[in-house]
Amino acid sequence: MADRLLFHLFILGSLSFSAIIISEASQCSINGLPLVRNISEIPQDNYGRGGLSHSTVAGSVLHGMKEVEVWLQTYAPGSRTPIHRHSCEEVFVVLKGSGTLYLAPSSHMKYPGNPQEFSIFPNSTFNVPVNDAHQIANTDEREDLQVLVMISRPPVKVFIYADWFMPHTASKLKFPYYWDEQCLQPPPQKDEL
Amino acid sequence: MADRLLFHLFILGSLSFSAIIISEASQCSINGLPLVRNISEIPQDNYGRGGLSHSTVAGSVLHGMKEVEVWLQTYAPGSRTPIHRHSCEEVFVVLKGSGTLYLAPSSHMKYPGNPQEFSIFPNSTFNVPVNDAHQIANTDEREDLQVLVMISRPPVKVFIYADWFMPHTASKLKFPYYWDEQCLQPPPQKDEL
Repeated sequence: MADRLLFHLFILGSLSFSAIIISEASQCSINGLPLVRNISEIPQDNYGRGGLSHSTVAGSVLHGMKEVEVWLQTYAPGSRTPIHRHSCEEVFVVLKGSGTLYLAPSSHMKYPGNPQEFSIFPNSTFNVPVNDAHQIANTDEREDLQVLVMISRPPVKVFIYADWFMPHTASKLKFPYYWDEQCLQPPPQKDEL
Repeated sequence: MADRLLFHLFILGSLSFSAIIISEASQCSINGLPLVRNISEIPQDNYGRGGLSHSTVAGSVLHGMKEVEVWLQTYAPGSRTPIHRHSCEEVFVVLKGSGTLYLAPSSHMKYPGNPQEFSIFPNSTFNVPVNDAHQIANTDEREDLQVLVMISRPPVKVFIYADWFMPHTASKLKFPYYWDEQCLQPPPQKDEL
């Protein structure tokens, strides 16, 4: 179904530039969205990250959620998230595949440091504590890793680390995050007094 | 795996009464719980409701979550939730089976009234707006309906209606809710002044 949707988007894109503009605008409005949605038909993208497929199943920006947001993500073999942290709760449910959670519970120290490693497997669940630096990796060589992700306090505000020894204060805020960028404008810069 | 767990609990229960006390106490403590858990091994129960299987995948009372909670629920053919509302966001992902969402977006009226009906199906998602009275039913005659449920503001505080025409003010608060009862004591009654 996702393939069919991409095909439809390709056809739409071929029609005219104005058609694309209309399509993008309608992706940013909750008006007209059915209450019950087929997850297979929700737009998915890799947002420039090789091996990723992300769909916002129920989102702040896209669907008007205020307190929880749900993502469906697939990681190709060898792909992984950046090392990052966020000031929200996050629960994972592994739908298929396996991999590794790297977790550095060290928000009280200067930098994350060497993370703990946890094996994740089909039908497993785990949560990432608020503000702990972490990374999810598909460490399997053949099978995709597919997860449902639930976060609080959407839209997510992500701080990205270049490595596990980058100071927390040097980590870089990415907001709006990649999948919120199209529909969420960054907050206006305040004038300095 | 859930069957195996129940069998283990039965054996444990046969050993001695003190063993049961220890088992129940440990179910209410997050100490010693692994970070990555096998969902098949999480305790599940019907809490006195025929046709229901409920597991708290990541919970406020059981796992220390403060902002989101995740449930896995299975409804046997013909079974349904009570008509109810809660002051939190709620997102469903249908893993298998089909059924009906009954939704009465009428928190501004005196009673829910006749609900709207929405078909739910495998790989569908929907969210229930805060405080809207609703009911989920497995209206299929043969197949189980299995859903992942995400809520905000845990632990859930549920108001139950006897029917769709019961005034909102007559709906009955059930708190702690059935799956939180074992580990969450009701708040102490304040002395009247």
